[in-house]
Parts: sequence; structure tokens; C-alpha cells
Amino acid sequence: MTQIHNKIEFILELEKLKGVLRKTRPVGLERYENSAEHSWQTALTALIFLNDAPPQIDQLKVLKMLLIHDVVEIDAGDVFVYDTKARAAIAEQEAIAAERIFGLLPEAIGSELLQLWHEFEGRQTAESKFAKAVDRINPVLQNLASNGHSWVENDIARERVLEMNREIEAASPELWSVLEKRVLEAPFFSQ
Amino acid sequence: MTQIHNKIEFILELEKLKGVLRKTRPVGLERYENSAEHSWQTALTALIFLNDAPPQIDQLKVLKMLLIHDVVEIDAGDVFVYDTKARAAIAEQEAIAAERIFGLLPEAIGSELLQLWHEFEGRQTAESKFAKAVDRINPVLQNLASNGHSWVENDIARERVLEMNREIEAASPELWSVLEKRVLEAPFFSQ
Repeated sequence: MTQIHNKIEFILELEKLKGVLRKTRPVGLERYENSAEHSWQTALTALIFLNDAPPQIDQLKVLKMLLIHDVVEIDAGDVFVYDTKARAAIAEQEAIAAERIFGLLPEAIGSELLQLWHEFEGRQTAESKFAKAVDRINPVLQNLASNGHSWVENDIARERVLEMNREIEAASPELWSVLEKRVLEAPFFSQ
Repeated sequence: MTQIHNKIEFILELEKLKGVLRKTRPVGLERYENSAEHSWQTALTALIFLNDAPPQIDQLKVLKMLLIHDVVEIDAGDVFVYDTKARAAIAEQEAIAAERIFGLLPEAIGSELLQLWHEFEGRQTAESKFAKAVDRINPVLQNLASNGHSWVENDIARERVLEMNREIEAASPELWSVLEKRVLEAPFFSQ
């Protein structure tokens, strides 16, 4: 195949992420959110907070990471962030998925995106820490705006929500202090 | 409101784009595509082609444009690209929507995004021409992969498809030559 046909195949493969459902619902809609629309909102959310981020953070890299961060779910599915055991179990499957899916692309861009995905998952660089933190923002806002629907449905305790989302501080300490207060005051937790 | 509350309000406003439906269907799904998941795929498609774009193109700017390009549809709705009359009629409504929605943000980031949206619509700069061209790619691939569903349903002639999508050349002449050939050979056009 020529490089252009590889690119077309990759772009068509992306269609499948629109059918991967998450545990949260878009605010105001009854259906569950898919990982494609989540990826869009997460990248745009990053853009809003990058504006105030330290200047040494490579903004382009953060946006690239967030655009591709969930593509592995095409093969591995979405695993609820609070299901720590299932998340650990699926890590290898996700790495294989990344090889397969980014491997559809021509070598130069494919290996760049594969490396970026590993960097994101590795959480060691300034960009990956920022991107991982931003990835936590939208589900918290969605839950706070909709009676904690995915927390209540999945029996997630208030303390667990605080523990799993504290990393939002790495993107915006100011945002985390607002969200932490709202989680602490939320009336819908049973425990 | 403090700046952080303005940002939260904007991010929650974005939820509404997940409920704005387009005329195309994701490949393999029966439902119509929404403008949020389309925006994700379009930005990621840009990333694939930016890799071979002239080095003077500002990649970050292109991604920013594509992440925000359809946000005005929250107020103005999606208008089919082939409905040239309706598109002209809605231009003013979209500009008012851009003022309102980006106006939710703190001044610095809000005015940057508003300006970027106008630059995208104006199609005068290298980045906006590239981004506009990329925005045409996915509906063509989706139609070619699914018996021309939105072209057939809306009675769009082959010549009109060629005319409206030729600007894809500005992002990738090689891609356009493949797509043009496929449109010319497609068996599903009635005229």
C-alpha cells in the first residue's frame, strides 16, 4: 500500500472510537458518552488551561496526546477509571492495540504517535502529567452537573472520587480547589 | 464570576455540541454523527496530514482552529455543506454565536479563540486554508465507505461532490487525487 492508502485506512479505523461507550453521560443527554466526543472535549479543555500553564510546556504535544489518548479503546474498550484492578489487567492489551492501530500509519507519523501514547501513559514528562490531569476534568464536571450519575450508579465513595481526581491539581490548582469543595459538599454520596 | 468559574461554564457549554447532529453517519453505525465526535476526528486527521505540510504552517494553530470550528453550532445548528443558500443565511447567526460562546471565557483566551474562529471562516491564511480543507476529508471518506449515504439521501450529484470537495487539495493533493478517482467511479450516484 502507498502511504496515502495507509493514512486513509487509519482515518477510517478511527470511526470505531465513536462506538466505544464510557460510563458517563453528556450533560443533558440520556445516552452514554463515546470516547471520540470525550477526546474532543478533553483536548479543547486542555487548550483553555494551557493558556495559563508554564511556558515550558509544549502545547502542541499536549494536544496531540489528548487527541490520540483513547484510540487504543478501539481494541481494548473503555475501562472505568475507578476500576483499578481492571485497568491494570488491560494495560498490556492497550499496548498491543497501540502497536496495531498506530502501525496502520506510514512509519514516520505512526512511530511518533505510538511514542506519544507511551509518553502519555508513562506520566513522567511535564506534558504527560498535564494531559493526564486534564483527562480527569470532564467526568468530574459531568458528574457534579448531573447528580453524580456515574459515581452513584457505580457506587463510588466520595473519598475515592477525591483520591482519583486530585491529580487535576497538576493542570490547574485553582480548578481543583473549586472541584474538591464541590465534591465535599455534594449531597448525592451514600458514604 | 472569577476566571475559573468562567472556564467551567464554557466547558459545560461544550456538552451541547454532543447533541448537534450532522447529515453523515459514522461508518458502521446507524445513528447520525454529532459535531463533537466529528471535531475530534477532523483534528486528528489534520495531525496526520500536517506531518507532510509545508514547515511554515503553524500546526498548533491548525489544531486549535479545528477543535473550535463547530462550536458555533451549539446555537446555530449544523447546516449541510451542500446547502449553499442556507449556509449563507446562517453566517450572521454563527458570528453572533461565536461572540456569545467564546465570550463565556476569560478575556485573554476568549478573544484568542474568537479571532481564530473568524480566521478559520475567512479562509485567507495558510492555516485556515489547510484547516478548511481537512474539514472536508472525513465526510467524503464516510460516504465512500457507506454507499454514499448522505449524498444519496440528500440527492447530491457527483459533479457537486467534486466541486465542493476539491479544496481538499490544499491539505493533500495526493489524497484528493485518490478521492476524486473514487467519486468518479462510484456506482451509487443517480446523476
